[in-house]
Amino acid sequence: MFEFRIQRTAGPARAGTLTLPHGEVKTPAFMPVGTHAVVRGLSAHDVRRTGAQIILGNTYHLHLRPGEEVIQQMGGLHRFTTWDRPMLTDSGGFQVFSLQGLRSIAEHGVEFQSHIDGTSRTLTPERAMEIQWQLGADIAMAFDHVVPGQSSPTAACEGMERTLRWLDRCKARHAELADGRTGGQSLWPIIQGGIHDELRMRSLEGTLERGPWTGIAIGGLSVGEPKPVMHRILERLEPSLPKEIPRYLMGVGFPADLLEGIARGIDLFDCVAATRNGRHGTAWLPTGRVNVRGASLKGSTEPLDPTCDCETCTTYSRGYLRHLFVVEDMLGLRLISIHNIRFLVRLGELARTHILNGTFDGWTREWLGRHYARGD
Amino acid sequence: MFEFRIQRTAGPARAGTLTLPHGEVKTPAFMPVGTHAVVRGLSAHDVRRTGAQIILGNTYHLHLRPGEEVIQQMGGLHRFTTWDRPMLTDSGGFQVFSLQGLRSIAEHGVEFQSHIDGTSRTLTPERAMEIQWQLGADIAMAFDHVVPGQSSPTAACEGMERTLRWLDRCKARHAELADGRTGGQSLWPIIQGGIHDELRMRSLEGTLERGPWTGIAIGGLSVGEPKPVMHRILERLEPSLPKEIPRYLMGVGFPADLLEGIARGIDLFDCVAATRNGRHGTAWLPTGRVNVRGASLKGSTEPLDPTCDCETCTTYSRGYLRHLFVVEDMLGLRLISIHNIRFLVRLGELARTHILNGTFDGWTREWLGRHYARGD
Repeated sequence: MFEFRIQRTAGPARAGTLTLPHGEVKTPAFMPVGTHAVVRGLSAHDVRRTGAQIILGNTYHLHLRPGEEVIQQMGGLHRFTTWDRPMLTDSGGFQVFSLQGLRSIAEHGVEFQSHIDGTSRTLTPERAMEIQWQLGADIAMAFDHVVPGQSSPTAACEGMERTLRWLDRCKARHAELADGRTGGQSLWPIIQGGIHDELRMRSLEGTLERGPWTGIAIGGLSVGEPKPVMHRILERLEPSLPKEIPRYLMGVGFPADLLEGIARGIDLFDCVAATRNGRHGTAWLPTGRVNVRGASLKGSTEPLDPTCDCETCTTYSRGYLRHLFVVEDMLGLRLISIHNIRFLVRLGELARTHILNGTFDGWTREWLGRHYARGD
Repeated sequence: MFEFRIQRTAGPARAGTLTLPHGEVKTPAFMPVGTHAVVRGLSAHDVRRTGAQIILGNTYHLHLRPGEEVIQQMGGLHRFTTWDRPMLTDSGGFQVFSLQGLRSIAEHGVEFQSHIDGTSRTLTPERAMEIQWQLGADIAMAFDHVVPGQSSPTAACEGMERTLRWLDRCKARHAELADGRTGGQSLWPIIQGGIHDELRMRSLEGTLERGPWTGIAIGGLSVGEPKPVMHRILERLEPSLPKEIPRYLMGVGFPADLLEGIARGIDLFDCVAATRNGRHGTAWLPTGRVNVRGASLKGSTEPLDPTCDCETCTTYSRGYLRHLFVVEDMLGLRLISIHNIRFLVRLGELARTHILNGTFDGWTREWLGRHYARGD
């Protein structure tokens, strides 16, 4: 079960419908991150109530705890978590390459030490496929060689070329696991190449040569490079990206990043910022960010965001939310995370509506204009 | 709006219906504790789903944060918390008397230092009434002089007699605040007297002389004395307690304490053990306690308690709950707290059903027999 239909476009921006084994995803869409088989602090019911249509699981973390064998024996990631809608797992590449000093890279794969118990582990393209197969998400990601944010052309080229060679191995192993059956888990490749346009284009060409694919991801962005550089690369890639498959910009983003990405043809996003900010008491509002601990919220009976339809904004007052942070009750963390996720999910819904109505360009320009004028 | 009707009895045990300004409470009933205007980690919706009919707020904590003025300005404790069912507030007596070394007691009241910021505060019978009036719960508790668990007859007598003198002042101030209006907040007195039967009886007599009351509480138990002592005192008091009003055993308890209390004529209970145990990963089951971190739960697809109808047991597996504690996600704390509260609420519901069906004695004996045989 895999289908992607585009309902309407607005320049590069697209309103589509992605059909996966566990259901439909109306795009553009934000995917909350469920690092440890849980969107931090939230029940599957909480996440469903935000309108999220698809969530992400982290292969690296799930491999360490509880282990893919345990999850498979318990019926897969969907049954384990009780999340019954579509799910995507990353390959673990981003996490193991982030383990500076705890990992060594070779053509075969990456040896690393668990950050939990120090045990030695190896992740290869084949293992990344096997683990994700056992987890059983709708979409598995290829195992990629991720280089630091502003790597030299030489380092970025090495990572990009290895990612292509590893893609061959991922594709072969994934095909073996699928064993001719269709309609199950899809494998999506990842474009690398750092901040270097020509490397990015070569990565895209090499990736497409190895296709066809049912979706394509852009990795290694939003890792410290200036925003205009990310925008430039998206603009450079966009005309050459296949129109008929969804595009996923990995690890992005903050509210403005979503709109900037959608305007450049991106369909899917994921980022931990919504929940991380939520746990720190920072809420995203149409009028800018607010720290929920702030004294100005004391005694306020107003909702956090009067324009928001989330559980937090339709139920609780600013004064009560502030009180929960003051007394350090974990309900506060949860309620702000719920709001921030709903904020991004709703931004995707709004963008989609404006694309369908033919009003996307004006709306985005106005939204981003207000955003940048505030200097958020 | 205040009414208490008894539907049926089984010896001292009673099945009743208490009608309060914010709704009905079918008794016997457990009241979850919302220390800081929140049942720790749970939303009002979570608590409603446990079947809890009434919750408790702590005057001491709410006086310090956010302050009764703030809550009153925001429309009272019900609007502040969004808890729309009945609520009871304690008087702060238990908390301020627990501030060893930070408080001085006089006939006028108690001077104490805030455990939050060290500021000097005074709580008197009158102030306790005023704060609770501003909080606006359905039931306010009298300000009592609480003595340590196994105090001498002299110390226990002093506390008991002062509690009676303070009760006069509470009653007078509460009447002034009510200003002739009926149907609003009720004031309930507290019986003290430590572990000394005669003092307990004198406390009860003195309390009833100052009545009539719409309910009566027994305080200063379950504070370190042996369980048989608590049971003896309850048995001694019971025949002299007015039949027509609800009886509330403060700060009790654990599952067996509920049944022991109900069998001795108690209608209402409160205790933080359900949520405190939940946060530490200890779940109460009909088969005894279980630590959710235990290795035996790994990979289990069974519900925590197959006989339980709570959100946790009807949604998640033991293996997933264990995983949440292993990765230290706060969802785990919440889910076990929900189960433990539901366990106590349901124990009240079951006791009520058995009283109504005329099967209470046999059922309680069997339940407690199994419990004590396990040595829980």
